[in-house]
Amino acid sequence: MTKSPILALSGGVGGAKLVLGLSKIMPPKELVVIANTGDDEIFHNLHVSPDIDTIMYTLAGISDTDRGWGLSRETWNAQEMLLTYGTNPWFNLGDRDLGTHIRRTDLLAQNFTLSEVTRKLCEHLGVNQIIAPMSDDPVRTRIKTKNGDLSFQEYFVKYQCKPFVKDINFSGSKLAAPSPIFLNGLNQARALIFCPSNPFLSVDPILSINGVRKSVIDFKGPKIAISPIVDGKAIKGPAAKLLLELGHEVSSVGVARYFRDLCDIFILDNKDSHNLNAIKHLGIETRTTNTIMKTEADKISLAEFVLSLTKTFHD
Amino acid sequence: MTKSPILALSGGVGGAKLVLGLSKIMPPKELVVIANTGDDEIFHNLHVSPDIDTIMYTLAGISDTDRGWGLSRETWNAQEMLLTYGTNPWFNLGDRDLGTHIRRTDLLAQNFTLSEVTRKLCEHLGVNQIIAPMSDDPVRTRIKTKNGDLSFQEYFVKYQCKPFVKDINFSGSKLAAPSPIFLNGLNQARALIFCPSNPFLSVDPILSINGVRKSVIDFKGPKIAISPIVDGKAIKGPAAKLLLELGHEVSSVGVARYFRDLCDIFILDNKDSHNLNAIKHLGIETRTTNTIMKTEADKISLAEFVLSLTKTFHD
Repeated sequence: MTKSPILALSGGVGGAKLVLGLSKIMPPKELVVIANTGDDEIFHNLHVSPDIDTIMYTLAGISDTDRGWGLSRETWNAQEMLLTYGTNPWFNLGDRDLGTHIRRTDLLAQNFTLSEVTRKLCEHLGVNQIIAPMSDDPVRTRIKTKNGDLSFQEYFVKYQCKPFVKDINFSGSKLAAPSPIFLNGLNQARALIFCPSNPFLSVDPILSINGVRKSVIDFKGPKIAISPIVDGKAIKGPAAKLLLELGHEVSSVGVARYFRDLCDIFILDNKDSHNLNAIKHLGIETRTTNTIMKTEADKISLAEFVLSLTKTFHD
Repeated sequence: MTKSPILALSGGVGGAKLVLGLSKIMPPKELVVIANTGDDEIFHNLHVSPDIDTIMYTLAGISDTDRGWGLSRETWNAQEMLLTYGTNPWFNLGDRDLGTHIRRTDLLAQNFTLSEVTRKLCEHLGVNQIIAPMSDDPVRTRIKTKNGDLSFQEYFVKYQCKPFVKDINFSGSKLAAPSPIFLNGLNQARALIFCPSNPFLSVDPILSINGVRKSVIDFKGPKIAISPIVDGKAIKGPAAKLLLELGHEVSSVGVARYFRDLCDIFILDNKDSHNLNAIKHLGIETRTTNTIMKTEADKISLAEFVLSLTKTFHD
């Protein structure tokens, strides 16, 4: 009998690293990964789900670890033609990656839900863990900046996170329902993990979905969050810059404050152990370990640490 | 001032060869090529227009002349992923070619007509001649065979023209209108050329469109057809096999009989000069020349021959 699963909430690259670690030490069907889809966007009439794909490609062992995103053995010939046709492809779409977007779009047009499509894609890639979108309904992260209102990809890729962010909201989230797998996980999982993803751009969109924040707060099992900020800097991406611009302390303390009502245990990096007391004062149980995942051993090591905490909590 | 144009009706590879020859000896805006779109098909939710693309790629100088179809410098990585996802890609879609289909589908979804899309694609590829679909409405060639009812691509690519053909029809043609450029050409062109394309699979779909056959018969200028059958064999494709299966004489005489009411001058290959009298007995004016276009010189030579006949007729 499969044990009740671990529910991991994840954005893209950072989250996928921990998910990969977890996948190496757990029965696959016990790992349920909920991917942020606020970053999804339509390019050339094709539905692109960057976080789902990053997690899926990572677990399938076909992601390009040198480049840090996308697929290995990638080529860019379709995009070269799209450029010839006068389009402005600021979002890079590799040929193999396009195979995914073409298949996804085709299946969505056949009225499969994004959850069903994701399951099908994972099956064919040999991914046995469960990956599901946060919602089958469209939720889109909109970033209000001093340079205007941007989609996530415009902010992140086109403008390389440069514009000063004033506010972030999640278009469609009030009307969106959690995906069936997410809802099931919120009710039945034995633990909930906030992967080391950007709070504002990866966790918030998930929590913005109708009813999810309350379900997470009411979640019965242990809830563990890992800080994506180490030594006052983001391991990757604009998390530190956003903490600053949105008026938070740019440190693991700032992140801990974000997670105060959401998690039982907050994990920060060994390098941030000087913040331990400040975080304990927030009333959060904390642990320190190495959270920087460069090698597969790093990923497994952090995953083991997180998994052991879920057991301690239960005992 | 631009002279009234030459209107060339064309299928894929064979027609495109003559069109290329014509393009080398004529002002670009005087060459209007109407492409068969009965072969169009939706693959993976993408709109593929094989004959338009063959002509467009040929005139842009980017077709793969060794392979005989598709684009040069092509790769097949998106298709490899689509195969991984359990699709059955019996129709080969290269990465660069997919750039075209993605752009076309995106523009069609924005409610541009196929004519408008084709014009845009041609502009960006530097094709200055005018290429237009036979119709902006969907017309689909359906082939009744002893193995069942097939689309053109199923017959041509998936089953490699092997099934015995009982009948061919053109779904949607009764409701289809000629594209604006085609209609304009039928009214204003100074000559009409039937490129050496398959009568049943490339010319018939064009003629099947509501009102077109009558407009061709009533066309004022010279109408010239080139036999795609030489020495009892098709230069490429199933033209000879279809003549046989549909009960026609498998020779340039059989083709001439098809064109009897449609053309003023019928061009057959030097190798078929023994058929001259038989064709003259049908009441068609005939000419012989080399119609096999291997080199660019062959293409230009046949184009010059055709173009000179349009002038003779006028004088």
